[in-house]
Amino acid sequence: MNMDLLKENVGKEAVKLIDDGQVVGLGTGSTTHFFIKHLGMRIQEEELEILGIPTSFQSLILAREFGIKVTSLDEHDVDIAVDGADEVSSQLDLIKGGGAAHTIEKLVDSNAKKFVVIVDESKLVDNLGEFPVPVEVIPDSLRPVTNALIQMGGKPEIRMGIRKDGPVITDNGNFVLDTKFDIEDPAKLEVELNSIPGVLENGIFAGITDKVIVGKMSGIEVINKEEL
Amino acid sequence: MNMDLLKENVGKEAVKLIDDGQVVGLGTGSTTHFFIKHLGMRIQEEELEILGIPTSFQSLILAREFGIKVTSLDEHDVDIAVDGADEVSSQLDLIKGGGAAHTIEKLVDSNAKKFVVIVDESKLVDNLGEFPVPVEVIPDSLRPVTNALIQMGGKPEIRMGIRKDGPVITDNGNFVLDTKFDIEDPAKLEVELNSIPGVLENGIFAGITDKVIVGKMSGIEVINKEEL
Repeated sequence: MNMDLLKENVGKEAVKLIDDGQVVGLGTGSTTHFFIKHLGMRIQEEELEILGIPTSFQSLILAREFGIKVTSLDEHDVDIAVDGADEVSSQLDLIKGGGAAHTIEKLVDSNAKKFVVIVDESKLVDNLGEFPVPVEVIPDSLRPVTNALIQMGGKPEIRMGIRKDGPVITDNGNFVLDTKFDIEDPAKLEVELNSIPGVLENGIFAGITDKVIVGKMSGIEVINKEEL
Repeated sequence: MNMDLLKENVGKEAVKLIDDGQVVGLGTGSTTHFFIKHLGMRIQEEELEILGIPTSFQSLILAREFGIKVTSLDEHDVDIAVDGADEVSSQLDLIKGGGAAHTIEKLVDSNAKKFVVIVDESKLVDNLGEFPVPVEVIPDSLRPVTNALIQMGGKPEIRMGIRKDGPVITDNGNFVLDTKFDIEDPAKLEVELNSIPGVLENGIFAGITDKVIVGKMSGIEVINKEEL
């Protein structure tokens, strides 16, 4: 079984959680790609009334491709959000932002009544921090924020984009500093990073996950926050 | 003596603090307008080598108008920043952002080795909070952040701009929610506001002011943090 099949399995599994009439947060990335695809298929087959709230231009484009009507946080509350992650700890804290979409993802995911994470088993870790923390910074702040992150013990590297030696530009027009940290307290680090002037949002998602659906070679495992 | 004369007096006074060869943060607003003007005049008269780092498109334009060479935080550290404020507490904590420029102002001011505030006496208060706290939010987050601010006990109102019924757009392409709070602990509120997903930066500047120059009808008063 290859990685894509694991991702497609958890995407399909998450679609079963959606009820008719719901507003659904549409995560960003290679795993949520499959969730959006199968959600669109189910909407057509069962003629459901579902609205999607995209977390990126990527998920907006996918929603249109797979026939999901979209709305915004201005118009609707989110009943359930389904999103991927780059790391999931044993406490269900997350590192996200490998797709540079963590700012709007956090906005949508944290406002959802229920937040479901879908990952393949390679994303499960005991403690966060092997994956660097993506930190979205406004362009004016690149050097001072880099210095502030180093002062905090981090190892920031600007993420490169589609042009040689040019940075990734986020959907919000900003840069991303991928920053390796020894993380002891994810919730504390999340707050500290957002307190640096020039930081829009960081990729630590502490304490908001309700459920994780994990695709394993041996099948699907579901972890519920309330059962921890 | 009218208000503009008070503002011009403190702007001129702050120019005396600048040494040849320094990199100077150029604040935004009606008071710093005079600082930038008189700094430019002094540079021409005394043939000083000064570089300015603007905190807004407004101060960039003024710097050019008054012949101050500009640079950026990417190129230089800030020796001294001079900026206005909407409120200054007895502890020298500030509310800023009446000019919708507080995000870059905080970036520049907090990175300066010395941060000097220039105000007329109407801006002095015992405790912060008569002036609403400007909160810069990305457009996608307007409704959820409004709700979060109300949950925190705030009274947010979106700031209106040059078009009837249209919002102010900041230099960073975002909106401003002016939010009245009963403020007990400015430093705590500053951190809490920046932890709301969708918030870029808020207008509380706690603990970074080194000196305040106050323009009074009776003359100029200087308050130093270290003497409090």
